[in-house]
Amino acid sequence: MIATDLFNAGKGPVLVVAPHPDDEVLGVGGTIARLADAGREVHVVVVTRGGPPKFPLEQVQRIAAEAKQAHDLLGVKQTHWLEFPAAELPELPHSALNASLGKLVSELGPELIFAPHPGDIHMDHQLSFLSTLVASRPHQTDYPATIAAYETLSETNWNAPYLTPPFVPNVFVDISETINRKLDAFALFASQVKPAPHERSVESLRALATLRGATVHRPAAEGFVLVRSVI
Amino acid sequence: MIATDLFNAGKGPVLVVAPHPDDEVLGVGGTIARLADAGREVHVVVVTRGGPPKFPLEQVQRIAAEAKQAHDLLGVKQTHWLEFPAAELPELPHSALNASLGKLVSELGPELIFAPHPGDIHMDHQLSFLSTLVASRPHQTDYPATIAAYETLSETNWNAPYLTPPFVPNVFVDISETINRKLDAFALFASQVKPAPHERSVESLRALATLRGATVHRPAAEGFVLVRSVI
Amino acid sequence: MIATDLFNAGKGPVLVVAPHPDDEVLGVGGTIARLADAGREVHVVVVTRGGPPKFPLEQVQRIAAEAKQAHDLLGVKQTHWLEFPAAELPELPHSALNASLGKLVSELGPELIFAPHPGDIHMDHQLSFLSTLVASRPHQTDYPATIAAYETLSETNWNAPYLTPPFVPNVFVDISETINRKLDAFALFASQVKPAPHERSVESLRALATLRGATVHRPAAEGFVLVRSVI
Amino acid sequence: MIATDLFNAGKGPVLVVAPHPDDEVLGVGGTIARLADAGREVHVVVVTRGGPPKFPLEQVQRIAAEAKQAHDLLGVKQTHWLEFPAAELPELPHSALNASLGKLVSELGPELIFAPHPGDIHMDHQLSFLSTLVASRPHQTDYPATIAAYETLSETNWNAPYLTPPFVPNVFVDISETINRKLDAFALFASQVKPAPHERSVESLRALATLRGATVHRPAAEGFVLVRSVI
Amino acid sequence: MIATDLFNAGKGPVLVVAPHPDDEVLGVGGTIARLADAGREVHVVVVTRGGPPKFPLEQVQRIAAEAKQAHDLLGVKQTHWLEFPAAELPELPHSALNASLGKLVSELGPELIFAPHPGDIHMDHQLSFLSTLVASRPHQTDYPATIAAYETLSETNWNAPYLTPPFVPNVFVDISETINRKLDAFALFASQVKPAPHERSVESLRALATLRGATVHRPAAEGFVLVRSVI
Amino acid sequence: MIATDLFNAGKGPVLVVAPHPDDEVLGVGGTIARLADAGREVHVVVVTRGGPPKFPLEQVQRIAAEAKQAHDLLGVKQTHWLEFPAAELPELPHSALNASLGKLVSELGPELIFAPHPGDIHMDHQLSFLSTLVASRPHQTDYPATIAAYETLSETNWNAPYLTPPFVPNVFVDISETINRKLDAFALFASQVKPAPHERSVESLRALATLRGATVHRPAAEGFVLVRSVI
Repeated sequence: MIATDLFNAGKGPVLVVAPHPDDEVLGVGGTIARLADAGREVHVVVVTRGGPPKFPLEQVQRIAAEAKQAHDLLGVKQTHWLEFPAAELPELPHSALNASLGKLVSELGPELIFAPHPGDIHMDHQLSFLSTLVASRPHQTDYPATIAAYETLSETNWNAPYLTPPFVPNVFVDISETINRKLDAFALFASQVKPAPHERSVESLRALATLRGATVHRPAAEGFVLVRSVI
Repeated sequence: MIATDLFNAGKGPVLVVAPHPDDEVLGVGGTIARLADAGREVHVVVVTRGGPPKFPLEQVQRIAAEAKQAHDLLGVKQTHWLEFPAAELPELPHSALNASLGKLVSELGPELIFAPHPGDIHMDHQLSFLSTLVASRPHQTDYPATIAAYETLSETNWNAPYLTPPFVPNVFVDISETINRKLDAFALFASQVKPAPHERSVESLRALATLRGATVHRPAAEGFVLVRSVI
Repeated sequence: MIATDLFNAGKGPVLVVAPHPDDEVLGVGGTIARLADAGREVHVVVVTRGGPPKFPLEQVQRIAAEAKQAHDLLGVKQTHWLEFPAAELPELPHSALNASLGKLVSELGPELIFAPHPGDIHMDHQLSFLSTLVASRPHQTDYPATIAAYETLSETNWNAPYLTPPFVPNVFVDISETINRKLDAFALFASQVKPAPHERSVESLRALATLRGATVHRPAAEGFVLVRSVI
Repeated sequence: MIATDLFNAGKGPVLVVAPHPDDEVLGVGGTIARLADAGREVHVVVVTRGGPPKFPLEQVQRIAAEAKQAHDLLGVKQTHWLEFPAAELPELPHSALNASLGKLVSELGPELIFAPHPGDIHMDHQLSFLSTLVASRPHQTDYPATIAAYETLSETNWNAPYLTPPFVPNVFVDISETINRKLDAFALFASQVKPAPHERSVESLRALATLRGATVHRPAAEGFVLVRSVI
Repeated sequence: MIATDLFNAGKGPVLVVAPHPDDEVLGVGGTIARLADAGREVHVVVVTRGGPPKFPLEQVQRIAAEAKQAHDLLGVKQTHWLEFPAAELPELPHSALNASLGKLVSELGPELIFAPHPGDIHMDHQLSFLSTLVASRPHQTDYPATIAAYETLSETNWNAPYLTPPFVPNVFVDISETINRKLDAFALFASQVKPAPHERSVESLRALATLRGATVHRPAAEGFVLVRSVI
Repeated sequence: MIATDLFNAGKGPVLVVAPHPDDEVLGVGGTIARLADAGREVHVVVVTRGGPPKFPLEQVQRIAAEAKQAHDLLGVKQTHWLEFPAAELPELPHSALNASLGKLVSELGPELIFAPHPGDIHMDHQLSFLSTLVASRPHQTDYPATIAAYETLSETNWNAPYLTPPFVPNVFVDISETINRKLDAFALFASQVKPAPHERSVESLRALATLRGATVHRPAAEGFVLVRSVI
């Protein structure tokens, strides 16, 4: 159902939806690098951007700079900033997020989209997921053929077991060749990295890759939940 | 995540697990034909075989003959008969089914497996699903990269809503080019086809294909639930 | 548990909650016609109404006219317009929707309510469902005895399998006698009908009726999920 | 969706499937009495019967006598004993249970069936539920129009929360008029009644009726999960 | 996993999150009393407060007075009022609720938190649950070790079975010694108590305690769903 | 809800149910060691034992010897062997397993039981879980107060996502002090340890502990799903 040609050049663009910068690295970093290595054109869209007074301007600029470095390392072709206010998506008109994300999807025409998991504890993640689905509705001949949800350490495991949607991966991407680049890219987000045993630490991210890999007999992997794939 | 190259020649074999003959046509017929057209080597394994006194010998032979015709029409390369007694899988040693199916998977080395849905009302289906998973465990480097569950009219929709596992398709295969061949293949199972409005009728099977297709803006499709895919 | 007398005259009114005009036809059209034929008093409440600039005035008026024609054909006794702004329910005070719908339920006193499915992709549907439940709380002797959720093509199947509430019908209403009137009523919504293979097409709607019917050995049916029934 | 005429005379027979004697009283006793009062013909089928050495003959005979008294009190028209060995259903050919229950359903032609809940901790309950569904498959014009699952104190609440199917009632039958007869009938099963605070006590059964009733603003009720209803 | 020492003196504080006054008594009253008896310091935080015009000032003051009496009876050490407007949580910035609740959790440092159930029909309950989880994220060494969700009569049972998160208790606290004090405390909320058979009645609350107790062979109990416990 | 006194001496015995030897180490090894260190009396019951011809006698004896060493290292007080034939539990009378496990639970009177997860792919695990619950039914005053399910690498992650019960831990036990002893104990099962990247490898087990720990800001943890706890 899933061809190894996924990683060949010549396919359409790939889009990774990140509610906040670094989510895309935590959840899809190794796959982004593998896709880029295979010649695929990978885009990242960052839904929100921090701003004063909650987030000092300096910090915001620093994170943007870190994102640029990390994305360069992974081989991201272009980063799109929607600049909705961070941690305020629930207060914004839902239709505005739908419109903004819909416009990007329509113009870019991605074949493959990675979205955050709807069971993440952060409402920005939940709403970004829903808007991604709205933007990808199969109501015409062309639409993103495949949508998958990724996991975000310090978001996905902190919601309520059995009361909110669980993350149980059914797609595993072998990232044995790119796990180190993923960890390096995450380390570049110096403002976001926490020391172990915080879940948002390099050690925790490596353990996750080892575990997801072992589940399918690979040295390292990223796990995803398939939302829809049309062949 | 899913390349159009799925249907190119040169990939490994495909295996469709059918608890009883005709399940594979109801659930995967159009996809089998499309795979075969694309040069993929498709195998069907029929887990059970009827036998006297429950099933008269003549009927059993007739069904086997119908299966051969239907499989030829769809382009199946080989049909394997495990010959466990039909409707008696719950009484058989579960390890025997595991061993028999495991041997086939090991020898054939399929890249892609279609299994019946674990939420089907028939225990033969439930146990065939479980044994398929056991036979496909990723406990060594090579194993079936992708497993998907298919739906079987007159089995999948007759279990208990919300109390048994639901079938909600997340993989859709466009069978616009092969829907008619699928329906013809099903019609060849003359002993199994029922007149409308029975769910196991040609009319119902066509409606299902139309609906699954419309969900993804295609004239006809087959829906599947992805169990696992390793890339 | 369900008597054939459901369709006899003399019972209390029936209310169908439609987030947007035509949802009620897609999901309940055949049942409305059968209820009306049996002498039941059927009401439709349309929760939202489009408006400029998102929706040009002419289009809004046209849809209202189409709704009137369709409802007349089906035998709807009265259509109530709450006139909340379409696609903006998430931005409105939730208590306002509760109040407005609650007032209607209180004044009308329906015995049976059909609501959209909470797993639909459109937040207008999700919130309309929740408000219907709030309006129907059994906190006094009289309240709607039965609440059922209906499915809406192009909404219900486009959410996230296994991550959002699935629609698995447990109530089937035989609409063999009214399926054609349902399709005619839908065709009257000329501004909303899409050509096949769009899911919101006449062909797709017919296939759905055939499939839901076949599941219970009937030529055509509508499927519902029972939310609560008090006998 | 559910008419008060449910309880009028003149409808088809009702069948209550009890894995062991007294399950039918615990879960459906009040509804049985109300149905019988309304002139409905109610049958009980007891799937298993105890036997030596596990169950002394005297005890088995005593329970049968208690069942007769209790059923008489509730107005049961006929009790059918399938006499499969108690607590051994998992060891019996599943097809034998299907055949035996299927024969009864076929001959009796019930319009309404009550089955134990598939999430009960006892495998006899789980298998009785599944066989009831198999016996009720809508593969011809006539079949039981409605199937509902009931709850059994000391079985339903003792399975694993969130890991086995939950019992969340969506059908409530007002048994304010028959709750006392239900409790009396349960008391007649002197060999099965336990002193409070055992869950299989009269006090616990009364509390359950009070709670299920209060949920729908009635002095007493029985709760059920609807499996399927065709109208 | 759960020590009887839970109720010994010397442990950290306990916090009960109540969206509206009296929720904490309905769901946790008996446990609060038992904890207080054992010397534990129990706090209640009431998230919202009614206000004119929806809620007349007199009524609001009366409820506050009732809460004080009830809390005194149960042995609550301190009641905290966040004073968000009742029934308007969905309209408020979600981050404001997070901030306010987060501040309290941070200052108080509770070892154990009780939150309303996310499947309750009232959005104030759903949002209070989510904010409790956000406030309790394990992103540093110290955080509430245990979080459990409680059930609220007239909220938890009135949502949609199988379509919204079910409440299936996996933690049972024996309140045989405090059930009467719980009922007395509830009766002190004279403005909120309804006559039977309303679900928010003393009779219904007692029946719930009897049933939850019987499930674990105790005269009375309160049931909870464990969200997370770190040992 | 969960006191740190869990690990104090003086409490009742603890029982770990292992379908096959080494499951108890994979899932509960670190917690066993921590409990033993705290003076708790920990028992392991191994449900099955291999035997010729499937399992050569020499191998069986070797595993038993390895189990003894591993259990000694962890501080297990006693290991009980039920000696049911491995991989054949589905063929055995379910009541026999219930009786055997029930007798042990009755004689030992454990306060805390760890059972395998019912969603594991191996039917021996599924049936061991169910029998543990049957043996622990709260039908008298004394019964195991707490039951929790553990995860087993190479079993729990290999079943079908979203179609079989997921393992989403809600209880985390800090094993920072005992993780190395756990890994050493696992290494003692030389016949069962596989080289990485097999899921049943030391590396994978360490990654799991790191990840479960990070989720709750601890260097290492074991995760469990609470089945029931009575306080």
